[in-house]
Amino acid sequence: MSALGFALLGTAGAARRGRLHTAHGTVETPAFMPVGTAATVKAMTAEAVAATGAEIVLGNTYHLMLRPGAERIAGLGGLHKFMNWRGPILTDSGGFQVMSLAPLCAADEDGVVFRSHFDGSEHRLTPERSIAIQDLLGADISMCFDECTRYPVSAEEAAASMRRSMRWAERSRAAFRERPGHGLFGIVQGGVHPELRSESAARLVGIEFDGYAVGGLAVGEGTEAMLRVLDGTVPRLPEDRPRYLMGVGRPQEIVAAVARGIDLFDCVLPTRSGRTGQAFTRRGRINLRNARFAGDERPLDEGCGCPACRGYSRAYLHHLFRCHEMLGPMLLTWHNLRHYQELMAALREAIMRDDLGAAAGALSCPGEEPAVGSSSPVTAGA
Amino acid sequence: MSALGFALLGTAGAARRGRLHTAHGTVETPAFMPVGTAATVKAMTAEAVAATGAEIVLGNTYHLMLRPGAERIAGLGGLHKFMNWRGPILTDSGGFQVMSLAPLCAADEDGVVFRSHFDGSEHRLTPERSIAIQDLLGADISMCFDECTRYPVSAEEAAASMRRSMRWAERSRAAFRERPGHGLFGIVQGGVHPELRSESAARLVGIEFDGYAVGGLAVGEGTEAMLRVLDGTVPRLPEDRPRYLMGVGRPQEIVAAVARGIDLFDCVLPTRSGRTGQAFTRRGRINLRNARFAGDERPLDEGCGCPACRGYSRAYLHHLFRCHEMLGPMLLTWHNLRHYQELMAALREAIMRDDLGAAAGALSCPGEEPAVGSSSPVTAGA
Repeated sequence: MSALGFALLGTAGAARRGRLHTAHGTVETPAFMPVGTAATVKAMTAEAVAATGAEIVLGNTYHLMLRPGAERIAGLGGLHKFMNWRGPILTDSGGFQVMSLAPLCAADEDGVVFRSHFDGSEHRLTPERSIAIQDLLGADISMCFDECTRYPVSAEEAAASMRRSMRWAERSRAAFRERPGHGLFGIVQGGVHPELRSESAARLVGIEFDGYAVGGLAVGEGTEAMLRVLDGTVPRLPEDRPRYLMGVGRPQEIVAAVARGIDLFDCVLPTRSGRTGQAFTRRGRINLRNARFAGDERPLDEGCGCPACRGYSRAYLHHLFRCHEMLGPMLLTWHNLRHYQELMAALREAIMRDDLGAAAGALSCPGEEPAVGSSSPVTAGA
Repeated sequence: MSALGFALLGTAGAARRGRLHTAHGTVETPAFMPVGTAATVKAMTAEAVAATGAEIVLGNTYHLMLRPGAERIAGLGGLHKFMNWRGPILTDSGGFQVMSLAPLCAADEDGVVFRSHFDGSEHRLTPERSIAIQDLLGADISMCFDECTRYPVSAEEAAASMRRSMRWAERSRAAFRERPGHGLFGIVQGGVHPELRSESAARLVGIEFDGYAVGGLAVGEGTEAMLRVLDGTVPRLPEDRPRYLMGVGRPQEIVAAVARGIDLFDCVLPTRSGRTGQAFTRRGRINLRNARFAGDERPLDEGCGCPACRGYSRAYLHHLFRCHEMLGPMLLTWHNLRHYQELMAALREAIMRDDLGAAAGALSCPGEEPAVGSSSPVTAGA
């Protein structure tokens, strides 16, 4: 019996339509979690994040332990209250980011010593400390502390790294304070090596977690290799627990991973793209900085009901990015998060209809929008 | 008969409670206009600006003629549609900003030649071109093109500059296309010299405008000198037309100017302050970057109902500014604009009660918030 409730409502092949119950409410799965690195989904109020349809957000242990500090957030009533987010929060363990962001990072069997990339101060992360921090933050879902395996790497190194992560997973499980509505996820590692992934999955299932993540992907191995790992890994995870593909990704990758039985996703792509003028639309990706939008009266995406598409033209969004106005990133972040939530809603409906193949086509359109569309605008002053 | 409707609903001494009717709706006066320089009130959606209580915003001719261009905005349906603002818009003439922002600016009797501070391209502004641009933008209230008199300056120079502005006011009036709900305001100049201000006011009233602005203030002369100019100028303006004090200002200056019969204000102070962590509260100004707020659980202003005060602690706002998160400027801009609108609402009510003196005390508190308040917070992790 898990401390998190997870109910399967339907399936379509390997794809699952589920419902995850946490201390801060319910998440309809498959679900996409916007990334709220420093206790804020960048350029969005918490109300706006909820208005996009997001039901759960992700917080980053590495950033929050450094600024403002886990004890500080606990003293202020926890991360939910601090960032005014009423829904569930999943926190990562800090393992991935400490190794990718912190200078002078040294790992041994106990854990990781590193310097803050903000002020150079020295810090230590171990499985026990990572779990304690996630507890102080008040996470609904905590992640095991694991080692981020470099890519590319030899099979020997991948094996050693994965086995250390499995020992850390045992320590994480032992350190985790069980209570209703709060759960701990294990993370399958093993690089692109099927036998290591199988070994890792078996170790974690033996320990027993409230959910299982597939980690160490989207690090340069390519979509095809990533999907091969999922094909080999997901069938080895228990059906009655949620599955989370960490840090992925592009809309078409999400569709492919849902088809393979993944329930939870996070990625900075919609938010980071929004801040740099890149939008996801039903006709493909577009870069609002492009001069061809200077006189384009059309909304960003005619099929979208977000504030950016309801109230403004592409010409206006282009103008905002050209003038470095904050409203550009604000509106485009909102739109991209809304687009991702619409994609997830379409996938959930498609699973219930057992029609996953046709469902999410436009919303996961992988290319650039065609430059000359069928509804080419007539604009004055262009 | 003016093309703008203006009704006086009540007075308290020289202070006036009025209602200004424009093509895009009604403005309750005295009113504060948020500044939407580049077709956006920085860090705010148009819906959010309206939600603060603002009924009219200001657009800057200088910025908009350069980016994206007046003809471009006209081709896209005008400034209201472009920036998704349904209420009235007042545009300045570009005169002040061309002289303060543009490099290589040369003025003669015809107008001003300047280079764009964005790309160095050469442009020309004359009274006729300024009025044409404001017409292309679709301004509800246009401003006469005038010369920005430097400060400090000799009485001779101030006189010559003012008289040129009065000749330009005549040309602006002649160029203005009259239509219902749209009006043109003259701008009183003359520096800090009472006789020049009187001469300027008389010239403008002789031409007849739909409203009268007092310009050339808040340029370094100090509050006392500014109020002396108002004392000498406002009584020379017709009672049945709105009066606008340009670029002012601090809450206590707004209160003093309302008491002297001013109806309209604009200033970048609430928005610019919000972006740098400065907040206006009922207990005084505070700088959210200050370390003493790191553990402060209180809302920014207990008496305020804005999203920043309803949903977040000072500690959280401090964290956002320390981490350079966009949500900090977003929330603080919203709060400061709300604070200004509450000040204006309090002033409007006070005029109707004929009790202007006591009314706006807390909302126009000029000092810093006391460091140790009566409700000093008890915080953990501090």
